[in-house]
Amino acid sequence: MPAIGERAFTRMLARFFAAPSTVRVPIGDDAAVVRNPARESVLCCDPVIEGVHFDADTDRALVGRKVVNRNLADLAAMGAVADWLLVSLVLPHGFPMADLMRLMRGIRAAARAAGCSVVGGDIASSNGPLVVTVTAVGHCRGRVLQRNAAREGDAIHVTAPLGGSRLLHHLRFIPPLAEGQWLARAKVPVRAAMDISDGLLLDLQTMLTASGLHGAELVVAALPVSRAAKQLSCGEPARAVQHALQDGEDHALLFTVEKGRRLPAGGPLTKAARRPIGRILATKGLWLVHPDGGRERVAAQGWEHGIASD
Amino acid sequence: MPAIGERAFTRMLARFFAAPSTVRVPIGDDAAVVRNPARESVLCCDPVIEGVHFDADTDRALVGRKVVNRNLADLAAMGAVADWLLVSLVLPHGFPMADLMRLMRGIRAAARAAGCSVVGGDIASSNGPLVVTVTAVGHCRGRVLQRNAAREGDAIHVTAPLGGSRLLHHLRFIPPLAEGQWLARAKVPVRAAMDISDGLLLDLQTMLTASGLHGAELVVAALPVSRAAKQLSCGEPARAVQHALQDGEDHALLFTVEKGRRLPAGGPLTKAARRPIGRILATKGLWLVHPDGGRERVAAQGWEHGIASD
Repeated sequence: MPAIGERAFTRMLARFFAAPSTVRVPIGDDAAVVRNPARESVLCCDPVIEGVHFDADTDRALVGRKVVNRNLADLAAMGAVADWLLVSLVLPHGFPMADLMRLMRGIRAAARAAGCSVVGGDIASSNGPLVVTVTAVGHCRGRVLQRNAAREGDAIHVTAPLGGSRLLHHLRFIPPLAEGQWLARAKVPVRAAMDISDGLLLDLQTMLTASGLHGAELVVAALPVSRAAKQLSCGEPARAVQHALQDGEDHALLFTVEKGRRLPAGGPLTKAARRPIGRILATKGLWLVHPDGGRERVAAQGWEHGIASD
Repeated sequence: MPAIGERAFTRMLARFFAAPSTVRVPIGDDAAVVRNPARESVLCCDPVIEGVHFDADTDRALVGRKVVNRNLADLAAMGAVADWLLVSLVLPHGFPMADLMRLMRGIRAAARAAGCSVVGGDIASSNGPLVVTVTAVGHCRGRVLQRNAAREGDAIHVTAPLGGSRLLHHLRFIPPLAEGQWLARAKVPVRAAMDISDGLLLDLQTMLTASGLHGAELVVAALPVSRAAKQLSCGEPARAVQHALQDGEDHALLFTVEKGRRLPAGGPLTKAARRPIGRILATKGLWLVHPDGGRERVAAQGWEHGIASD
């Protein structure tokens, strides 16, 4: 098949991402026009890059799934419902058409699974790596969950087992939209919430800083360690805990609940997610509480991009 | 200065792009929460890439200006008002901090000029070229201008002189927001509108196809040829006309008006923009009408990305 032009591709896109009736102007015009489901919109934007967020030999359908779900996890962390997606593709020269179709199928499948629609986008090519950028637009039905609302004494929770995401979880995770929406409407005072993308310790530190707080403790025996974290640890429990604390791209929700309040059963939260894994402290620093009662201060280490220099 | 981390950069961003009071959750959380100014939103997304849309030595402030204004020109073509922007940056490794600041200043200046705000974004680095992707969100106060609404007999107009954009106009153009908004509220029946990004002939063909039409004629003597197009043509008028017909990145609006109706003076349209440059035909093909009355059929040539292959 010869190279496909931008126009032919846009026409194909419009057929591929069928628009629901709430879209007044679908893909194919200068911009999309959509009906706002609520008075406020929740907006985020996140790229994935070949060589940074996925390897060159990764199935393109999984790349599409990942970039959509990263953005949906950000909406989930606000307690939002997902409505619309825009997709911007920068393809390496000579990118195979078959790969492009797989990429789009992954994007569409992830969008459908979350009940949202791709309404726009753009495509270009460069001599660099594949870059896929997604913008997600949603709205909140309940409260807006922010990361800056944690308070001293709050219980700390996470919605899913952590660690070892590099064993494919980073490509296959399910964005915790149901959990976020449930937390946003819970009667129990859920205080702060955020997406765990850079590792529990680093993201917990981020939440503390955003909330104007300085310390927290995590109970090692209560940490939900994923099977992948255990697999990576050759049977050494301490190493598995390190993975759970520091690996990025878990995309579970980290959230806090007012001291002494219990999360009721019956929603999308697992039993493990309803059990606290630690609490916010008045004192400084991140602390691990070991099974023998010993306390260890740890650094907020995890995954962080270095950006610009000079 | 050492490399700056993602967190420090996000804090800097939040200060840099100060949020208006209609932003409930500004930069720094998982997503932004904004108030919708209208029942419908207009959404678009467009990247610029080093080596494709600008040269390596281009002032980064102009790169920031260009990527914002490309998106604003798309909103303008819908007749929309600009509200929010999201910015996703993929920086080459070792990108100088001073360049990053200039890029952000260019983005901020263009946003301010259009009365809109950057409310979110993301940053990452790669071993490829600089990629800056902007998503723009706006709303329509008047009608929604679509490209698929041209009809046989319509007069064809453009809002600004065309051609030669490579002589810096592609970095410095002003998005025709005022013109688009005026057309969307005009009493005269404005039918179809779109942004000229790939050259007049190619975009006119796109408008015809979208409208289910097959032909149009352009009056050569009426074409608004830019000073840059003339500069590039070494005093040969025919070459200047070629530039006006085929060069991309003009970002003027191409629009059609019901046959026999006149655009009133008094709005943001120039006198030249109120004069038709041609009309939609019932017959097939794109035709030039030369000053001697001769008619020449021309191909819809301009700038088109080849995308994927195999």
